[in-house]
Amino acid sequence: MLRYKPNYVPGPTNVRENVRLAMAREVSNPDIDHEFIPYYEEVCKKMGKIMGTENEVIILAGEGILALEAAIASLTEPGDRVLVLDNGLYGNGFKDFVSMYGGEPVVLSFDDRNEIPVEEVRNFLEKDHDFKYATIVHCDTPTTVLNDVSTICPLLKEYGILSVVDSVSGMVGEPIDVDKNQIDICCAGSQKAISAPTGLAMVSVSEDAKHAMKDRKTPIASFYANILVFEGYKEKGILPYTMPVNLIEALDVALDNILNEGLENVYARHAKIARAVRKAVEAYGLKQYIQSGFSNTVTGVVVPKEIGAIRLQQHIQETYNLYLSTSHGQYEDVILRIGHMGENAYVDQVLAVLNVIDQGLRDLGFEGNRNLAQLFVEALIEGRIDTA
Amino acid sequence: MLRYKPNYVPGPTNVRENVRLAMAREVSNPDIDHEFIPYYEEVCKKMGKIMGTENEVIILAGEGILALEAAIASLTEPGDRVLVLDNGLYGNGFKDFVSMYGGEPVVLSFDDRNEIPVEEVRNFLEKDHDFKYATIVHCDTPTTVLNDVSTICPLLKEYGILSVVDSVSGMVGEPIDVDKNQIDICCAGSQKAISAPTGLAMVSVSEDAKHAMKDRKTPIASFYANILVFEGYKEKGILPYTMPVNLIEALDVALDNILNEGLENVYARHAKIARAVRKAVEAYGLKQYIQSGFSNTVTGVVVPKEIGAIRLQQHIQETYNLYLSTSHGQYEDVILRIGHMGENAYVDQVLAVLNVIDQGLRDLGFEGNRNLAQLFVEALIEGRIDTA
Amino acid sequence: MLRYKPNYVPGPTNVRENVRLAMAREVSNPDIDHEFIPYYEEVCKKMGKIMGTENEVIILAGEGILALEAAIASLTEPGDRVLVLDNGLYGNGFKDFVSMYGGEPVVLSFDDRNEIPVEEVRNFLEKDHDFKYATIVHCDTPTTVLNDVSTICPLLKEYGILSVVDSVSGMVGEPIDVDKNQIDICCAGSQKAISAPTGLAMVSVSEDAKHAMKDRKTPIASFYANILVFEGYKEKGILPYTMPVNLIEALDVALDNILNEGLENVYARHAKIARAVRKAVEAYGLKQYIQSGFSNTVTGVVVPKEIGAIRLQQHIQETYNLYLSTSHGQYEDVILRIGHMGENAYVDQVLAVLNVIDQGLRDLGFEGNRNLAQLFVEALIEGRIDTA
Amino acid sequence: MLRYKPNYVPGPTNVRENVRLAMAREVSNPDIDHEFIPYYEEVCKKMGKIMGTENEVIILAGEGILALEAAIASLTEPGDRVLVLDNGLYGNGFKDFVSMYGGEPVVLSFDDRNEIPVEEVRNFLEKDHDFKYATIVHCDTPTTVLNDVSTICPLLKEYGILSVVDSVSGMVGEPIDVDKNQIDICCAGSQKAISAPTGLAMVSVSEDAKHAMKDRKTPIASFYANILVFEGYKEKGILPYTMPVNLIEALDVALDNILNEGLENVYARHAKIARAVRKAVEAYGLKQYIQSGFSNTVTGVVVPKEIGAIRLQQHIQETYNLYLSTSHGQYEDVILRIGHMGENAYVDQVLAVLNVIDQGLRDLGFEGNRNLAQLFVEALIEGRIDTA
Repeated sequence: MLRYKPNYVPGPTNVRENVRLAMAREVSNPDIDHEFIPYYEEVCKKMGKIMGTENEVIILAGEGILALEAAIASLTEPGDRVLVLDNGLYGNGFKDFVSMYGGEPVVLSFDDRNEIPVEEVRNFLEKDHDFKYATIVHCDTPTTVLNDVSTICPLLKEYGILSVVDSVSGMVGEPIDVDKNQIDICCAGSQKAISAPTGLAMVSVSEDAKHAMKDRKTPIASFYANILVFEGYKEKGILPYTMPVNLIEALDVALDNILNEGLENVYARHAKIARAVRKAVEAYGLKQYIQSGFSNTVTGVVVPKEIGAIRLQQHIQETYNLYLSTSHGQYEDVILRIGHMGENAYVDQVLAVLNVIDQGLRDLGFEGNRNLAQLFVEALIEGRIDTA
Repeated sequence: MLRYKPNYVPGPTNVRENVRLAMAREVSNPDIDHEFIPYYEEVCKKMGKIMGTENEVIILAGEGILALEAAIASLTEPGDRVLVLDNGLYGNGFKDFVSMYGGEPVVLSFDDRNEIPVEEVRNFLEKDHDFKYATIVHCDTPTTVLNDVSTICPLLKEYGILSVVDSVSGMVGEPIDVDKNQIDICCAGSQKAISAPTGLAMVSVSEDAKHAMKDRKTPIASFYANILVFEGYKEKGILPYTMPVNLIEALDVALDNILNEGLENVYARHAKIARAVRKAVEAYGLKQYIQSGFSNTVTGVVVPKEIGAIRLQQHIQETYNLYLSTSHGQYEDVILRIGHMGENAYVDQVLAVLNVIDQGLRDLGFEGNRNLAQLFVEALIEGRIDTA
Repeated sequence: MLRYKPNYVPGPTNVRENVRLAMAREVSNPDIDHEFIPYYEEVCKKMGKIMGTENEVIILAGEGILALEAAIASLTEPGDRVLVLDNGLYGNGFKDFVSMYGGEPVVLSFDDRNEIPVEEVRNFLEKDHDFKYATIVHCDTPTTVLNDVSTICPLLKEYGILSVVDSVSGMVGEPIDVDKNQIDICCAGSQKAISAPTGLAMVSVSEDAKHAMKDRKTPIASFYANILVFEGYKEKGILPYTMPVNLIEALDVALDNILNEGLENVYARHAKIARAVRKAVEAYGLKQYIQSGFSNTVTGVVVPKEIGAIRLQQHIQETYNLYLSTSHGQYEDVILRIGHMGENAYVDQVLAVLNVIDQGLRDLGFEGNRNLAQLFVEALIEGRIDTA
Repeated sequence: MLRYKPNYVPGPTNVRENVRLAMAREVSNPDIDHEFIPYYEEVCKKMGKIMGTENEVIILAGEGILALEAAIASLTEPGDRVLVLDNGLYGNGFKDFVSMYGGEPVVLSFDDRNEIPVEEVRNFLEKDHDFKYATIVHCDTPTTVLNDVSTICPLLKEYGILSVVDSVSGMVGEPIDVDKNQIDICCAGSQKAISAPTGLAMVSVSEDAKHAMKDRKTPIASFYANILVFEGYKEKGILPYTMPVNLIEALDVALDNILNEGLENVYARHAKIARAVRKAVEAYGLKQYIQSGFSNTVTGVVVPKEIGAIRLQQHIQETYNLYLSTSHGQYEDVILRIGHMGENAYVDQVLAVLNVIDQGLRDLGFEGNRNLAQLFVEALIEGRIDTA
């Protein structure tokens, strides 16, 4: 048994008690209970509601990254040209999946401190648009930048380019609107803003994407990352492998928590908190890493160089027993990330975390303008505080 | 929420209460808690103890079949010749994975009513042994036949052929002894005789197997099914993706349940029950499908043709609210399977199930010699009854 | 931690998983949450529905016996004459409570093998009816006899005598119909046929009973067993002590389980099983202790003298690891009790238990006519089997 | 189901997850499992360890107040003179229990803003010491005053007067040392600093107290509040009623939590937090109600008259969704109570609560000297912060 440690990072997030207790229930046998497939479909449709889509949604037994690999594995044939839109670590990383499955990634890179400039994409596409599909990251968590899928994806559609969107860390924090935004494959994971336990990956698949998969000349070079093995499961009455029922029951309750609160209320809660965190950080005298494309799920704060993000994180961990996270790669010693997503997006939690960050910075010699938590409360109050 | 239905099949098995309650606990964050990696390793080693190996064991976030795919994906390079030993549905199925990853499967098929005849394998190998590796299913559940990995795998080793053993349904019901039997990759799933929730796949990997993976000329054509992405995770301090901690904590408790009972006791419990079920079935006047290679985890009973396995199963489901399972493919209407593995291998459960099967057969016109449950109890008593 | 042991006795009964998981929830603070008192009242009213009454129902924080003491303590003034109807151990035991609180118990005793003969009570009352109240046990569990409260209580009412009914073990197994039967105080406990955890005692209190309490000349000589300390709690907005919320939430779910199944269905389930157990026992060649007044919650079987109930119970415990219960006092070595109440009243459980009893008797030299479990199934089938 | 509401009051306190999950376990049958009585005794002895006593400890199935009534009911005979030491609401309240059971309470009242002055008690006793026993409240929660049982109880012993101490709210927050302090009956409840669910009352009983109970001329006028009904339960192998096993298993885990942390560490944690809260309150510009006898389990803050404790509490409840508690009786609109006991005595919780109180006071027009939470942190740091 691993000892629990208080933590506050951009996922995995806290899992609400009713979700955890749902996992403790004795579950039915998914291979033999004829009610399981309708139930599975029902949970998939709930997931679709949260994604804003009527497309088929599939829940895969695996971590979020399996959703990305499944999208790429199912679409890519050897030689396919794929446009990789990149303004961050995850954006760039898509190219490796593309190559792995025999595709030719064309990486279009942008400044990592701003959201992808849609006009530049448009200009590029005017000249070169012979791509089977393009990949976009909704929220690139290492830098916390959010890309505007509502303009990029329809633009791709104009050129007949399918879109694969990684919204693992973006979804629920703000609308993803898969149908409205004409996203062909949207990828999600259970442990981020959905606040279910880690272990499930979800994809929505448009008819266009399905056609592309079915029209392949070569077979999909994977079973576990093959979206088509789920094709027609309802009619056939069989799923490709034994489903992790406990996790699916947990996901079901987590989705209910969101839908019962109301999607609009959930978005508003994220927006309110994110806005106040950003205001507080700036008023305190610190900077965010990014200059545009602020996500409502996470804030990336540049830690003063003389302190360093790693040292701050370790100091807070050792002194205040709170586990925070810096970032990855070149950002590791630069950015401290405050992940206010899903069940972590409540005022009392943010308050406690900001208090500790304030104290930790002070201990290491940085004096902010007033108390960071107090500034956060004041920013909240400007509108109206609502701690629920 | 899916309504629970009483069921008794060869997996997923019952999950003990302490395993289920472990899942309800608030878990630590595996990405940020520095104690997670040592904990993960500890659970992997416990798994190794149950497999009887000092080889590295890796727990993958996926259903049992991911273990099979990971073994094949990681070993197979285009053009590799692979020996597929086949005396059942799962045995035969390995050839598809081999082809999918570019290998050339050579299928050596045997009678499906008997364990693989080792002498015939030996004769075959004398003539042709140019294989990178061979695949063997330990217990092929559709027919319930158990293969003797303790002679087959060392034989393969003599010829320098790596072995990949699917022991998803065999393990824990009887010793698998990976090291003693020189098994290179042994595959397991959480939901069979281990009696943890579905969602984890486990592989043990020998040094020979690792060398084969590292000496490849082509990269492994998968991320999620790539065993090498775990290579050196302890030293690097990072795992390839966020681990499903709740499932791993549950697995940990399930493994403790087994080790606390004592592996020898667990094997003895399975053996005692399996023997008594087989005796009872025969004394009752029914036949098993197989003639040799009886597994201690499951018994396959041939249902009289005039009744049919499907009709019997449906009758019992509708009349007695007990969900049993027939088999797959050509066996579907032939075999009723009684899965006495893991937490399902206790006298009281088997007793109740046999009572119902007895009644169900009687209802449909088959009169056995005396009561099936009573026969089971008598077979148990011949030695000594021990219901615990 | 106490190791769980399989048991099957007339209470405490099994507690369903949803009831147990409800107890694991983080609960609100009953002293400070203004929604608690309405919630408490709601659960009390649900309890009233099960009792068949519009009278006020109070849930006390204590074991079932507290309900009995509270009834007696609240009604009895020094010198009060109280009629104690007695055809069993618990019936007789009421006299001690009456004396303890200064009353004068008049014990009217009857044969312990039959329900109380109402005509004899009527004859007695014609001659002597100067009683403040009378006590009756609904189901006297040591002998398993059930008394007909539907004729006794209205009869008492004719004479202006209040009735205190102990239905701790009878309720839910058959209708108690408090209002129809004019029962003034009806006592219940959480752990019998209601199948909630032990720790709550419930009383329904009629207006007549309340008047009697309020018209006392002496104060009630207890706080914890004083029903009147709950008087007006809704208006005052305060309960006499901190309520055990976890237990109340558990009771709430247990009551929902009953009401969702439907009271009539619950009664039918008990009746069907009880009838079949009784038939099977007789056909097997054993006798019940009682000759009339059969309860649907428990069956008392006379164990052959040469074996003895205690020896049978111990043999079964040691050999089959099943904990059964004999009886109390003079019945201890005579009666084996099969408690089929609440969550213990399902076919599969009774089947397993009867199988073990059959085997245990056989081991000790008693040969019944055929298998006891089989006889039970046949008795069930005569109507129609329904195992749910 | 009652919706959970965040709250922070002097009990019931938070119940740790492992305690709550222990309640969800399927429990053994306490009436029939021969291991239950040894287990019950083991938990009683753990409770004794926490009380600092070798005396017999009894766990009663009821709320904490049952412990007080049981002490008084078991000791008091009609006509007994009892000394009631009173410097608060609960202290004074003991006289009603004494009268209820026929005793003659002699109330010795002191200033409610200070601990009981031992010298005055000594002076009084010199003149009048003909008392069977005396009652003392350890921590009188309405005012938060703590009395020095370490001098009062030995003093009573000098005069041959038995002592009954209500330590329901004091225990665990500071040592009670029953044996060292010669306390004859010490009363506790599960839901205060022990942080187990509500529903269990505990008493330790000295040999002197037992003699007094056994030497009575009149029987104890209660069953449920009679300590003697537990006499010899181990030898007899039977307890007076069915024990609430789920609650006892929960208590067991809660006691383990305390003992695993180490009693000294638990006391230190309470002391550190209590000291810092008191310092912060004073530095902020508010006063405590009491002037001496500060308890480590709760702090009573006088709310400025122009605001009023009730208004402050309601404002915070409505605006910040945090349920706090004022006090009782004449203190209700005067004192806001901050209950830092048991699982509520952790830095992060106090921090969050003080933040909200600070904000609430500010909203209603009171400007403290700086931020209350910040002052608390600074007071902690003077020594060394330790948030665990």
